[in-house]
Amino acid sequence: MPEAALPGTPSRPALSSTPRSTLTRYRDRAATDPAALYEVLDAGLICHIGVTLHGTPVVLPTVYGRRGDTLYLHGSTGAGNLRAALTGEISLAVTLVDAIVYARAAMHFSMNYRSAVVHGRPVEVTDPEQRLDALRAIVEHSAPGAWDTVRAPDKKELAATLVLAIDLAEASVKMRTGDPSDDPADLDRDTWAGLLPVRQVFGPPAPARDLGDGIDIPAHVLDRVHRR
Amino acid sequence: MPEAALPGTPSRPALSSTPRSTLTRYRDRAATDPAALYEVLDAGLICHIGVTLHGTPVVLPTVYGRRGDTLYLHGSTGAGNLRAALTGEISLAVTLVDAIVYARAAMHFSMNYRSAVVHGRPVEVTDPEQRLDALRAIVEHSAPGAWDTVRAPDKKELAATLVLAIDLAEASVKMRTGDPSDDPADLDRDTWAGLLPVRQVFGPPAPARDLGDGIDIPAHVLDRVHRR
Repeated sequence: MPEAALPGTPSRPALSSTPRSTLTRYRDRAATDPAALYEVLDAGLICHIGVTLHGTPVVLPTVYGRRGDTLYLHGSTGAGNLRAALTGEISLAVTLVDAIVYARAAMHFSMNYRSAVVHGRPVEVTDPEQRLDALRAIVEHSAPGAWDTVRAPDKKELAATLVLAIDLAEASVKMRTGDPSDDPADLDRDTWAGLLPVRQVFGPPAPARDLGDGIDIPAHVLDRVHRR
Repeated sequence: MPEAALPGTPSRPALSSTPRSTLTRYRDRAATDPAALYEVLDAGLICHIGVTLHGTPVVLPTVYGRRGDTLYLHGSTGAGNLRAALTGEISLAVTLVDAIVYARAAMHFSMNYRSAVVHGRPVEVTDPEQRLDALRAIVEHSAPGAWDTVRAPDKKELAATLVLAIDLAEASVKMRTGDPSDDPADLDRDTWAGLLPVRQVFGPPAPARDLGDGIDIPAHVLDRVHRR
């Protein structure tokens, strides 16, 4: 049997029971705790959204932010793909790769991962306060602590920005953890098996070339830098 | 204007000239060298595929491999989502995040990234030799050097495995590099601006708990481990 790393549409009964979010394979890899969904979404840097454009699916990377059970996306009002997201259902995935799984047999190679898949129909956020809070959530998602130090969006910028909200009610989390799942007959092979951990690390920060003198790297940036 | 990190459908004239792979925004962020496509695909660990299932787009992470201008996917013959990929057009994206772009203004926060988006209609690979080579490409993509050390797929495993090929003819690469793009009026703000690099690193390897004594970590694994 192929290990089929990262396949299928997992289900999280606590969140969803629609056919497209119901697990059809590897039920043991589905998380059932809603907190697991938030954990994956909060740990990811980007998501991949799938929209239908010209009748076919288009997958695109984008940044996002979360407030409770709402996920926010943004872009230019001129962005056709984001506009397309308003015309129907979309899907959205955030995937964290934790390790490459080395097995004794080719078909048992896999990845350890955590993946969240969200389905829903985005709505445009029009309330001024909610729009600003959504933009704050998006900036703070990739740059925690930065919002209060920067110039807030002005009227012209806000007018050029499309903000979308998608409810996290129909979502699923799937993960694989642990050792390779080799067949018993392969265990005595003279082949190394195990996990090669994968991590995303930051730093060191590189100041902009036009940064003024005497502006130190702030703690909210420096504290993210990987140290070993 | 919103910086709109990672938006749009970029174009690579050298590869594609269809409407859905033609850049509509940020044309300066599109790569025109076909080698750039292979570089992004080869550097990624997973892709996100978008298929149409029950009439709506579904985005799922999966592993892949490349041979020339063909990308291979695999999964269980019982995987509904992969079967769905055979019934029509799909889209597929590989995204590498290179840095978080800290700006002086909220709407200029962004990511430096390289992203490949592929469109096409996958075909099932049925030729036995091509199937085996596709599986080798997939395993070697995430675990270079491993294939020759492991047990090859047997007849039963091969019968349970669906292998798909997608042509890379209709594809695009988009990237953002360099410093934040702040407005001139914001440059004298007392706000730090610059790049926080993001990297994916490996290691250290963790042998499987049931690994036999005296089997050392092979060079093809150990050489991937991040050292600083």
